[in-house]
Amino acid sequence: MASIGNVTPSSMHFDQPLALTSGAQLADYTLVYETYGELNAECSNAVLVCHALNASHHVAGIDAQGQTGWWDNLVGPGKPLDTDRFFVIGINNPGSCFGSTGPTHPHPITGRPYGADFPVVTVEDWVDAQIRLIDRLGIGQLAAVLGGSLGGMQALAWSLRYPDRLRHCIGVATAPNLSAENIAFNEIARRAIITDPEFHAGHYYAHGVVPRRGLRIARMIGHVTYLSDDVMGSKFGRKLRDGAISFDYDVEFEIESYLRYQGDKFSDYFDANTYLLITRALDYFDPAAAHGGNLAKTFADVRAKFLLVSFTTDWRFPPARSRELVKALVDGKHRVSYAEIDAPHGHDAFLLDDPRYFAVMRTYFERIASELAT
Amino acid sequence: MASIGNVTPSSMHFDQPLALTSGAQLADYTLVYETYGELNAECSNAVLVCHALNASHHVAGIDAQGQTGWWDNLVGPGKPLDTDRFFVIGINNPGSCFGSTGPTHPHPITGRPYGADFPVVTVEDWVDAQIRLIDRLGIGQLAAVLGGSLGGMQALAWSLRYPDRLRHCIGVATAPNLSAENIAFNEIARRAIITDPEFHAGHYYAHGVVPRRGLRIARMIGHVTYLSDDVMGSKFGRKLRDGAISFDYDVEFEIESYLRYQGDKFSDYFDANTYLLITRALDYFDPAAAHGGNLAKTFADVRAKFLLVSFTTDWRFPPARSRELVKALVDGKHRVSYAEIDAPHGHDAFLLDDPRYFAVMRTYFERIASELAT
Repeated sequence: MASIGNVTPSSMHFDQPLALTSGAQLADYTLVYETYGELNAECSNAVLVCHALNASHHVAGIDAQGQTGWWDNLVGPGKPLDTDRFFVIGINNPGSCFGSTGPTHPHPITGRPYGADFPVVTVEDWVDAQIRLIDRLGIGQLAAVLGGSLGGMQALAWSLRYPDRLRHCIGVATAPNLSAENIAFNEIARRAIITDPEFHAGHYYAHGVVPRRGLRIARMIGHVTYLSDDVMGSKFGRKLRDGAISFDYDVEFEIESYLRYQGDKFSDYFDANTYLLITRALDYFDPAAAHGGNLAKTFADVRAKFLLVSFTTDWRFPPARSRELVKALVDGKHRVSYAEIDAPHGHDAFLLDDPRYFAVMRTYFERIASELAT
Repeated sequence: MASIGNVTPSSMHFDQPLALTSGAQLADYTLVYETYGELNAECSNAVLVCHALNASHHVAGIDAQGQTGWWDNLVGPGKPLDTDRFFVIGINNPGSCFGSTGPTHPHPITGRPYGADFPVVTVEDWVDAQIRLIDRLGIGQLAAVLGGSLGGMQALAWSLRYPDRLRHCIGVATAPNLSAENIAFNEIARRAIITDPEFHAGHYYAHGVVPRRGLRIARMIGHVTYLSDDVMGSKFGRKLRDGAISFDYDVEFEIESYLRYQGDKFSDYFDANTYLLITRALDYFDPAAAHGGNLAKTFADVRAKFLLVSFTTDWRFPPARSRELVKALVDGKHRVSYAEIDAPHGHDAFLLDDPRYFAVMRTYFERIASELAT
């Protein structure tokens, strides 16, 4: 299927301070975004795509660096999220290292990079930042907000925070909050970064270094938890890189080689302060906390229709967590569709074009499109 | 139930070089061990207990430091492994940091600590080291070799390597080899240690430092994988340490506090080179590799009877891995008992006194004891 082709990001600056959940504020900020397709005359066909930990606004097409968007298999002309029918917005969140205002950008007072002084942001803060862009684009109501993993949490937050501003909320491989185990893995990754001597309390830019060791470890942990035991077994198993054991701590097994490569690559392009910020936003997300942990109460007043998708081998955001959301929505007599896909790829499945998963997405977006036509 | 009381370790020196799987050799070595109960006149009631990653010869009773043995709940007078009937030997493996010859000990040629020059050892090497001690104690045939996790791998290796030297092989929460996911977690832990600037290529003793950052990360990863998602949920859940979120990277959640404490404690007493050695021994263990991966062929000539125990929530050594062993043994018409315990505690369950698990152990050891009586 054809890709959307070459794409160019736009950016939008916001002068009004953004009040944050923590009590702090962001004095001003810029959001980088991409759009695909055309906004219709009624401004009714816009779909906002929210990104997860290590992604960006570059959802589809090919950017100036020749990089394909992270959800290009899903988004494009004739694809499940069809850019011939929808106006799709990919947006980069504040705190990121991919263009929107973040820790590598100058602090408005000191002029030096924010570094560790960039305020801690939450999923709700991101949604508050995003809606200003939606406002400026003149979109009163989004056809859908869509995201996987942490992106799905943003979609859920939209449905709770701005119930009239979206008709559909689509959360793939997501959860109403992180489990203790998930927080534990985030914490280990953060400790690896923070205790790296080159972290310099988050002001490593001034020292001309990067806490690369910590970033590598963080990414390796992430990778193991994104894959299922099964898929690691079938992809790598106990395969030796050089066919024989050499009895040392160099790479012996293929899986070691893969992880080291992923860690090295990540530490070349990802910002350590952003990693800390985003994992903290994941940890903190817990909309039911304000309702005594009662999810049904939490979602009582949503207006959107929901599609939730989970994957059987995803042990980071397992189906049980999606089912909690489904139950809460059903209890509240909300409209919710749910698909549990028997895919082997673990959490990463949400980025892959499993035919059953993509058939669900295609059908659901066709339904949204048919609502536009009437 | 009564503990065995105060115990004192013994040590035994071996002058003969130990040939290692890698081709290297250990010029000479000392093994530290403890014994509980009395060896009977026929020398037929001896049970060897093999330790896992971070344990030692101190299996039961209270040592001079006031520490209770790591399997004191299982081993003692009137306990499932009853020291009134059995002569139990706890043994510390070469490469360890708890007394037997290891990286912190002087290299026989340089006189300086071995450090990174301590040879890479395998499960089979440990068994070869252990049998010399069993020989010297005058024990022709062990009533049983018993171990959990990596200790269970040693029990399996005994059954394969010295089939006539044990009557029973008891492996708890063990596996015929590590999966790619297990190797991956070991590799991340090793990278955290090796890339710690205070590792100094394994010769940190000379620098008067310890790669504490790396050890902490290694232990935190270990801890998460030893527990089940469920037990972490019920023990810690999303509980905040101070009742409210403070929006920073200090400890917010109880699980973070627990992990940091475990990491700190571990880095105070465990040796980094030992951690590398033991995780590599885990990675390498794969007796079926020499038989084209055919486990039934691998175990074709064993003589021992087997007891295997697994725990439903153990995702590091899941029941499926024990069932592979059971199937191989059944295929070979060997005698094998298998218990799959529905315990919530993950891999750590093998150290805990779940009543169903301990009932299985008690019954099995009573059967071994009844064989002694005849």
